[in-house]
Amino acid sequence: MKALIKKTPAPGAAYESMGDLKIRADEVLIKVHRASICGSDLPIYGWNSWAPERFKTPSTFGHEFCGTIAEVGAGARDFKLGDFVSVESHIFCGLCYQCQNGQRHVCREMKIIGVDGPGGFGEYAAVPARCAWKHSDDSLRDLGSLFEPFGNAVYSVLVEPVAAKTVLVMGCGPQGLFSIAVAKASGADRVVAVESSKYRADLAIRMGASAVFSPEEDPRKLVKDGFDVVCEMSGAQAAITNAFKYVRSGGRITAFGIPSKKIELDWANDLIFKGVRVHGIVGREIFETWYKADRLLRSGAIDLKAVVTHTFPLKDYAAGFAAMNAPARDCGKVVFVP
Amino acid sequence: MKALIKKTPAPGAAYESMGDLKIRADEVLIKVHRASICGSDLPIYGWNSWAPERFKTPSTFGHEFCGTIAEVGAGARDFKLGDFVSVESHIFCGLCYQCQNGQRHVCREMKIIGVDGPGGFGEYAAVPARCAWKHSDDSLRDLGSLFEPFGNAVYSVLVEPVAAKTVLVMGCGPQGLFSIAVAKASGADRVVAVESSKYRADLAIRMGASAVFSPEEDPRKLVKDGFDVVCEMSGAQAAITNAFKYVRSGGRITAFGIPSKKIELDWANDLIFKGVRVHGIVGREIFETWYKADRLLRSGAIDLKAVVTHTFPLKDYAAGFAAMNAPARDCGKVVFVP
Amino acid sequence: MKALIKKTPAPGAAYESMGDLKIRADEVLIKVHRASICGSDLPIYGWNSWAPERFKTPSTFGHEFCGTIAEVGAGARDFKLGDFVSVESHIFCGLCYQCQNGQRHVCREMKIIGVDGPGGFGEYAAVPARCAWKHSDDSLRDLGSLFEPFGNAVYSVLVEPVAAKTVLVMGCGPQGLFSIAVAKASGADRVVAVESSKYRADLAIRMGASAVFSPEEDPRKLVKDGFDVVCEMSGAQAAITNAFKYVRSGGRITAFGIPSKKIELDWANDLIFKGVRVHGIVGREIFETWYKADRLLRSGAIDLKAVVTHTFPLKDYAAGFAAMNAPARDCGKVVFVP
Amino acid sequence: MKALIKKTPAPGAAYESMGDLKIRADEVLIKVHRASICGSDLPIYGWNSWAPERFKTPSTFGHEFCGTIAEVGAGARDFKLGDFVSVESHIFCGLCYQCQNGQRHVCREMKIIGVDGPGGFGEYAAVPARCAWKHSDDSLRDLGSLFEPFGNAVYSVLVEPVAAKTVLVMGCGPQGLFSIAVAKASGADRVVAVESSKYRADLAIRMGASAVFSPEEDPRKLVKDGFDVVCEMSGAQAAITNAFKYVRSGGRITAFGIPSKKIELDWANDLIFKGVRVHGIVGREIFETWYKADRLLRSGAIDLKAVVTHTFPLKDYAAGFAAMNAPARDCGKVVFVP
Repeated sequence: MKALIKKTPAPGAAYESMGDLKIRADEVLIKVHRASICGSDLPIYGWNSWAPERFKTPSTFGHEFCGTIAEVGAGARDFKLGDFVSVESHIFCGLCYQCQNGQRHVCREMKIIGVDGPGGFGEYAAVPARCAWKHSDDSLRDLGSLFEPFGNAVYSVLVEPVAAKTVLVMGCGPQGLFSIAVAKASGADRVVAVESSKYRADLAIRMGASAVFSPEEDPRKLVKDGFDVVCEMSGAQAAITNAFKYVRSGGRITAFGIPSKKIELDWANDLIFKGVRVHGIVGREIFETWYKADRLLRSGAIDLKAVVTHTFPLKDYAAGFAAMNAPARDCGKVVFVP
Repeated sequence: MKALIKKTPAPGAAYESMGDLKIRADEVLIKVHRASICGSDLPIYGWNSWAPERFKTPSTFGHEFCGTIAEVGAGARDFKLGDFVSVESHIFCGLCYQCQNGQRHVCREMKIIGVDGPGGFGEYAAVPARCAWKHSDDSLRDLGSLFEPFGNAVYSVLVEPVAAKTVLVMGCGPQGLFSIAVAKASGADRVVAVESSKYRADLAIRMGASAVFSPEEDPRKLVKDGFDVVCEMSGAQAAITNAFKYVRSGGRITAFGIPSKKIELDWANDLIFKGVRVHGIVGREIFETWYKADRLLRSGAIDLKAVVTHTFPLKDYAAGFAAMNAPARDCGKVVFVP
Repeated sequence: MKALIKKTPAPGAAYESMGDLKIRADEVLIKVHRASICGSDLPIYGWNSWAPERFKTPSTFGHEFCGTIAEVGAGARDFKLGDFVSVESHIFCGLCYQCQNGQRHVCREMKIIGVDGPGGFGEYAAVPARCAWKHSDDSLRDLGSLFEPFGNAVYSVLVEPVAAKTVLVMGCGPQGLFSIAVAKASGADRVVAVESSKYRADLAIRMGASAVFSPEEDPRKLVKDGFDVVCEMSGAQAAITNAFKYVRSGGRITAFGIPSKKIELDWANDLIFKGVRVHGIVGREIFETWYKADRLLRSGAIDLKAVVTHTFPLKDYAAGFAAMNAPARDCGKVVFVP
Repeated sequence: MKALIKKTPAPGAAYESMGDLKIRADEVLIKVHRASICGSDLPIYGWNSWAPERFKTPSTFGHEFCGTIAEVGAGARDFKLGDFVSVESHIFCGLCYQCQNGQRHVCREMKIIGVDGPGGFGEYAAVPARCAWKHSDDSLRDLGSLFEPFGNAVYSVLVEPVAAKTVLVMGCGPQGLFSIAVAKASGADRVVAVESSKYRADLAIRMGASAVFSPEEDPRKLVKDGFDVVCEMSGAQAAITNAFKYVRSGGRITAFGIPSKKIELDWANDLIFKGVRVHGIVGREIFETWYKADRLLRSGAIDLKAVVTHTFPLKDYAAGFAAMNAPARDCGKVVFVP
């Protein structure tokens, strides 16, 4: 099989042949149909930020992917050859307190596919059977690699109900764009976005935002006493500071965007005196979120196609990473076809 | 002023002149702009069912109405002449345990406007200021009498979140039709209805139902393991029995439709072994539901106009009640213009 | 090994030798330390009610038990010989919608240990590894068979928070007694019970009830506007009717006691107009409830010993069933030592 | 009447005669029975921190108090002379979005009694009738001034259920001590505290803590994977940092202690990757919390007497403030008798 391999602890990667994958009893082998680039793949490819400390070379990587079951481990229940699956990237143990109390997404023994072990940027991938989510049919197959990141947005937005609430989404990368769509489809009164890139602002409108403000403007022009819900999808200090300004007293903030350093907060005035709730969101509820994501897409309430702005054969991986790294941020989701 | 007056303990009513209304210090006087007929007005008009035991003649009646503030009591805060308001029909005391714990809609001292005292089928109505809900503008004025019944549906549907859930609505009178619209606008995966009247089934489709079944058909044809949510809006024994059959194990039922006699349940198999939750719904959350209702209408997510199938001058009240009582059930909401 | 075997479709059972158990790859073998009688074992033993239709002879039965791991299947993770476990009696599939959405207790493919297959009234029992709940140590070993039924009560009471709420428990069999203890330990304002048996009423007081009323008395003498929470643990029509009378408007009812026939409700006045919520409770949340149960017992907040009124060697099973069937209902939980 | 008056914008205050209070139509006059010092009274008395910017002299102050109704405004419902009341210090408007949506404690027009207007350190106080909470009898009269601060703790702890959860309380001033008691009475698995003062650590044990750690120790010695719930009652940067370390993944933090400057957080690792929820808590739910507080005290589940370490006649106010300001922090609550 061929795969995109991070061969050495240095920038870049190589699309090469490698030996065939062998699966363990509790695993399935997936013939990869689509894979997409997550923001967290960039440090691996570019060999910066957290990657040198955590990622072990040589290895494949990539954790947003889907495909058909090509082999089923002896101990893997409920799969047969040809089943179409998307992959939950969080390998949960199933046995710890969190796993047994409805919080597998923060499993104590969590390993991430494509980060702490081999990934899905290749013709095949081996994953624990419990991380394969079987689609009811393959009608959404070309969007199958998006379930993992779209699930982040579904969880981010729906961690509390949004029907008839005002929602502000800060940052319109793929996660922000997905969040806009989820809020809109779930009955938000209005969805307002903050984004500096014209390209992404246009996508925000297509996904259902009623208005997009630049980071310098105060979106409370539209909702004067603040928003019921603020989804912070950017990780920027300024945006986090503003999230607390823009949320109404008694409202809630979703914290999803990951800052690269520590964050300063006006804990007294912005958190306590406003009586605000903050939800730190990582991953997706396994598998509650998957069913919600599936239904939102399958019912036609949300169409993710507009967010897939670039599609490349996997061998043209360099073009994909270049698109993601473009200074103008004129991209949505980049998808590979192995 | 002129008003529709229930003069004697007998069927019918009369549209006549009466003395001007005087308001108490805690009341406001409303110049009525629209009023609509609730199913519970029919026993008063027809003088049957519970009405002879509870309703005191002579009195005006009607509890779905809206209008402009024409006079403000000395102790009534926050209103000025000309404000456009809809009326919460439940007069809550504000002082009991329920009122002080977020459940004014089941106040221990509850009185219903137009049932336990004078109502809104007239040129003017006097109501406690705390029951007047001020609109932010009067753009929805012609739908203003619908906020009260629409609020029932908003509370019925959104008592638990419905985003990405399958919803079955049993009975497509105005409350069922409203519920379909609320579920659809709030991100329900799909909304299926049960209704025998062709006229109402057509309205159900217009309000967002993806399919309408007759009471003889099993809607699990479409959702084979049962629905996440069943809203029972009819009050019929057969529908209640079926609600428990059609809800999935672990799902929830909203009980809103009011039966005229006792109901038989398979408590063991249908409630306990299925692990079902049942929410008895009366009135609306005061005023949580009002804000949700306002936003769902104001954002354009829901348009109630199709449900208003008949509009009459109040003097033609007899035509209105006749429409409501038509055996073919070929009506939605009947609205009066005083 | 020896076990209590239901040999023929007729009343009674026999304590006899049988062949050794073989386990499947996904199972563990448990050397049974304690087993207890559930009310639902009585129809199997007595061969009445639902048992003839569902139970297949010959088979062992019993589904409340604990013990030490004596053998571990090849595919069973996380167990080693000597681990002390209690058994979740509901064999959930782990793959259906309910299982993957936090509701394993209403799994679509549910089988009950000791009802739909072999049980735990014997020296050994084979169960799916996923149904064995490992204790952190064996200090609670003599109470280990009670985790399953105690879990019913934990789930029944804590399905909504009870801190500072008034709680009424109807019926003081073991489940009612457990529920009293859970409510009391979880901060209920007061816990009142309804029970006709003097023996059980005394146990109710020991478990924390502040008062016990006979079924003929109205407990609203103590809480005049009704109880925030009513746990209906009896399954009797009269008690269910009263549960709706005794709950306050806006309160909640837990439905756990299983009636033998259909139930009549005043759906309009008791459910809808009072704005009541009803939770049908079956089984336990897997494994949320197990951790809660463990902590409530381990912290010393609850001591279940008083509820274990009878202990017999398993060979004296007839005495155990006789105690359970005593017309005076002068028993709590009956425990067997294999 | 005599009262403690902040006469000039400088440290100190004076206990003097002043003119009798006149009440408005919507107010009641309270003959003060007990008043207690809140930490936020210290800046007013000492004339430092936020006080010079916000507090207008001359004025009485103090916002924790109780007493009997001595006069009832013409528009004030539901009170009669002699009723015993405690005072909700947050004057909510009742009309804004928050007030009408169950969040009066973050009313947009909030004024604080004794901070933004006259207070309760005097023989009499005038307050809006809607801020007077009537006791069912006067058996708790000597603890009546504690309902307001105790309510903070009730809300802080019970904002999510704590039954069978592990709870860590950081900081054992009066609010921390109250929180320990509330968690313990509400079924927490165990309650662990962090506090440096030996005096307060002893009080923590009396209120129900199973262990008290110094700020230098890691309380995960006892609960190795972290606590389900952490109540941060101190406002110190180090404690807030540790709160995020000590909470388990998927757990929740209550933020109540008010820092004097901005706070630095490891937003990525401590909030997002751990999937933590943070509740900023201010005031109390009006009046949900009041009923809970009343029941927890009235049932005997919690006894606050041990926390009242100092009681002085109001004329000895200087001794009271000295006790609160003692560097050794060897005090709990300081109560005045006017």
